[in-house]
Amino acid sequence: MKKIRVTIWNEFMPHQRIGVIHDVYPNGIHECLRQELAADDLEIRTGTLEEPEQGLPDDVLNTTDVLVWWGHSGHAMVNDALVDKIQRRIINGMGLIVLHSGHASKIFKRMMGTRCSLRWREVGEKERVWVVAPEHPIAQGIPETFVIPHTEMYGERFDIPDDGKIVFMSWYEGGNVFRSGVAFQRDSGKIFYFSPGHESFPIYYDPIVVKVIGNAIRWAAPLEIFPDRISHQPEPVEKITTKNPHPKK
Amino acid sequence: MKKIRVTIWNEFMPHQRIGVIHDVYPNGIHECLRQELAADDLEIRTGTLEEPEQGLPDDVLNTTDVLVWWGHSGHAMVNDALVDKIQRRIINGMGLIVLHSGHASKIFKRMMGTRCSLRWREVGEKERVWVVAPEHPIAQGIPETFVIPHTEMYGERFDIPDDGKIVFMSWYEGGNVFRSGVAFQRDSGKIFYFSPGHESFPIYYDPIVVKVIGNAIRWAAPLEIFPDRISHQPEPVEKITTKNPHPKK
Amino acid sequence: MKKIRVTIWNEFMPHQRIGVIHDVYPNGIHECLRQELAADDLEIRTGTLEEPEQGLPDDVLNTTDVLVWWGHSGHAMVNDALVDKIQRRIINGMGLIVLHSGHASKIFKRMMGTRCSLRWREVGEKERVWVVAPEHPIAQGIPETFVIPHTEMYGERFDIPDDGKIVFMSWYEGGNVFRSGVAFQRDSGKIFYFSPGHESFPIYYDPIVVKVIGNAIRWAAPLEIFPDRISHQPEPVEKITTKNPHPKK
Amino acid sequence: MKKIRVTIWNEFMPHQRIGVIHDVYPNGIHECLRQELAADDLEIRTGTLEEPEQGLPDDVLNTTDVLVWWGHSGHAMVNDALVDKIQRRIINGMGLIVLHSGHASKIFKRMMGTRCSLRWREVGEKERVWVVAPEHPIAQGIPETFVIPHTEMYGERFDIPDDGKIVFMSWYEGGNVFRSGVAFQRDSGKIFYFSPGHESFPIYYDPIVVKVIGNAIRWAAPLEIFPDRISHQPEPVEKITTKNPHPKK
Repeated sequence: MKKIRVTIWNEFMPHQRIGVIHDVYPNGIHECLRQELAADDLEIRTGTLEEPEQGLPDDVLNTTDVLVWWGHSGHAMVNDALVDKIQRRIINGMGLIVLHSGHASKIFKRMMGTRCSLRWREVGEKERVWVVAPEHPIAQGIPETFVIPHTEMYGERFDIPDDGKIVFMSWYEGGNVFRSGVAFQRDSGKIFYFSPGHESFPIYYDPIVVKVIGNAIRWAAPLEIFPDRISHQPEPVEKITTKNPHPKK
Repeated sequence: MKKIRVTIWNEFMPHQRIGVIHDVYPNGIHECLRQELAADDLEIRTGTLEEPEQGLPDDVLNTTDVLVWWGHSGHAMVNDALVDKIQRRIINGMGLIVLHSGHASKIFKRMMGTRCSLRWREVGEKERVWVVAPEHPIAQGIPETFVIPHTEMYGERFDIPDDGKIVFMSWYEGGNVFRSGVAFQRDSGKIFYFSPGHESFPIYYDPIVVKVIGNAIRWAAPLEIFPDRISHQPEPVEKITTKNPHPKK
Repeated sequence: MKKIRVTIWNEFMPHQRIGVIHDVYPNGIHECLRQELAADDLEIRTGTLEEPEQGLPDDVLNTTDVLVWWGHSGHAMVNDALVDKIQRRIINGMGLIVLHSGHASKIFKRMMGTRCSLRWREVGEKERVWVVAPEHPIAQGIPETFVIPHTEMYGERFDIPDDGKIVFMSWYEGGNVFRSGVAFQRDSGKIFYFSPGHESFPIYYDPIVVKVIGNAIRWAAPLEIFPDRISHQPEPVEKITTKNPHPKK
Repeated sequence: MKKIRVTIWNEFMPHQRIGVIHDVYPNGIHECLRQELAADDLEIRTGTLEEPEQGLPDDVLNTTDVLVWWGHSGHAMVNDALVDKIQRRIINGMGLIVLHSGHASKIFKRMMGTRCSLRWREVGEKERVWVVAPEHPIAQGIPETFVIPHTEMYGERFDIPDDGKIVFMSWYEGGNVFRSGVAFQRDSGKIFYFSPGHESFPIYYDPIVVKVIGNAIRWAAPLEIFPDRISHQPEPVEKITTKNPHPKK
């Protein structure tokens, strides 16, 4: 069996390696997810912002089938040239799974074309998630509704394009609603945004949340990574009889 | 009546001010369109790449309801900071009409999130356009099919998101097909891409083509330009009884 | 000014003309809405199930620009032949506004192609509605969030096609979420489903709810009602040189 | 390996069992496709209009994972009750592949909600098909463009909902264009419409066309057939404190 080559990227900034965040994710969200997602069909690497080439050198990016992205405070520090390269690989087929505060990452905003803004409130309230598309591969094995006991609220208006397939929607104790799991196709690449998850709540240990992310990785894995498309097609495939009034020299 | 404030932007590079291009559009495509589109409900300005602030100073951009964009050789010369500002205004409500080779402009690719690539061939062949959505405001008064006698072929695969509303599709003598008129919504802004048009064929004098562009401008004019959205909503609208395990200091 | 010709249809069955329903809507929901929606640009008629031709004789249907539909217990009693005629007029341009329990009406299910099922619970709980598309014509003048103090819960999974533009989403006290205002295009007709509203809660007197319905009527009003499309096009528009191996006699 | 249970339905009316149609498909299109599609992972049955229960008795329908549909002259003869049952099974997960003139079948129109009309012309002209979504499972192994030497023209405006994923588009010698391969999701069921194919041209022997249909069957095969959804949810999942003003007795 050919394994899916997954790279989990986490900004993992200094202030995320101390205090309550360290207590919850001692080795970082990327390490937590690497362990929780471990499976025979996945080959998982990780990358972080402070590593060489911001954790995504070409030889890693170019051998990644699905990229999982967690970022928050460090969005602006990600190099535009790296974002260009990630976008190009997604367009050619690589899957992208964007988690929680990754909604405001350069790469997600790049792929969406919008600001990807939302309402937020951080008071540890309860979130209830609903499966809206039970037939979707990402919803397989997920109960029709489940609870995140404490979370940061993310609420509508969520500023994303209209062609997102809504897989999950969330209810918040404080009165908000949210499209919390949305799937996109952009050229040959699949993209899934999933909001549950947070740096100081232990949400990435929740087996349901982990199962959603694992399903998403398998759904987003490409059949094929395509080469860049050749756009010039000088020879017509059908005969042209119209005379060109401005023939090229 | 409140007029729609339109700005027609054309890169109008030096090589586009001489030779066959000059013969066809002596004062540039922007001037041609300004004259052809002239109407009581439109207030039309123009901008070009070599003008100060690349033809779109803040006081122009911030008083533009609909921006019409023509570019080709100069895409890379448009400042990223200007693209950022245009994107922000579109997201807040400004309409964007992208013409022909503008498919590869920074602003269109920014709004789409994809490469917006297509096949092309420049042999002056015949294009036949079909109205696919006769009820759409942009198709009002347009015959169900019309011919562009000589054009550059733009063919599928056209790499755009799937939520584009197809208003026009084109047939080419040389055997290609194309989604030649596609409408998008991105947050509060409307975007219309229309492929007919070229720098050295007199397509922007065609009254049907002009009517399509005029319809598109009126369709894309915003009801309102919104301010940036405030995303932090610290106070819940419903009562929260769950205790925050990580209260902020 | 050409007025929009609106017909408000309500099943208005015998058990809906007595008791608590009569107390809240003494002359029926259709009469309530007729009065609440009254405006200079609207010409409003009503129809009910027990009237001749089920309240929608041809001369009414064929002069209706926008049909507003409220039904519940009587869905099955609506004649299939009438549903056929309504569908045909929608396809040719008439707008359709479907209210609350109309989600299970024959005409809405016909236009959607799905069962249009949803979860429901009738305990008079609180609903909070959110504007998800503030730039949409139907959301003009509507506050970003508003409350229905007592309602029947309608919750996801709401079984509708994915091309619905979500204008409103709802939060329910009992833990559910719902796409409560969704706009569709089906051929030349516009369709809007809006869930707030109920036969025994006075929701159709709420000025915000009435404003939404009024906005929806104006949005759904057709530019034109089209004749049935002619599909046989025996003469090609471009020259065919291929020889037909099976010429018709 | 669990096989995909495919049922190929063909109206196979008397006039389709004689003359040129008989010459091309001696045992009917259903038998041609059964043989051409034969593969280890498919278990293929067939049904025709004149068979008992119109070729789709409950025990066949209820054990079908993917239904392939070919009809033309006999659309009106298919029982509405059978269409109801097919729709219900699609909604619960069964795939539906609709071929060529099946665009006007009751079941396709039922699932789309529109008339599914198109332009047509039958002069044996050339069709050129383009792959518009090379990454889609249905396009795997299909060349980027291929030719149907003689066919009936099907052209735009094709009256289908906007959420169809366009996999193929066609060019016709006579000047028309068409969305010739379009994929839909309707509740838990996947639907694919594919126009190439005809009763008197030998298109269903073309290995590329057969490969497309085979790919579509595998794409449309459900992960699961769901039971009908229970919509009444009397017990809230979160605590309701609002007092019901109209409590049920």
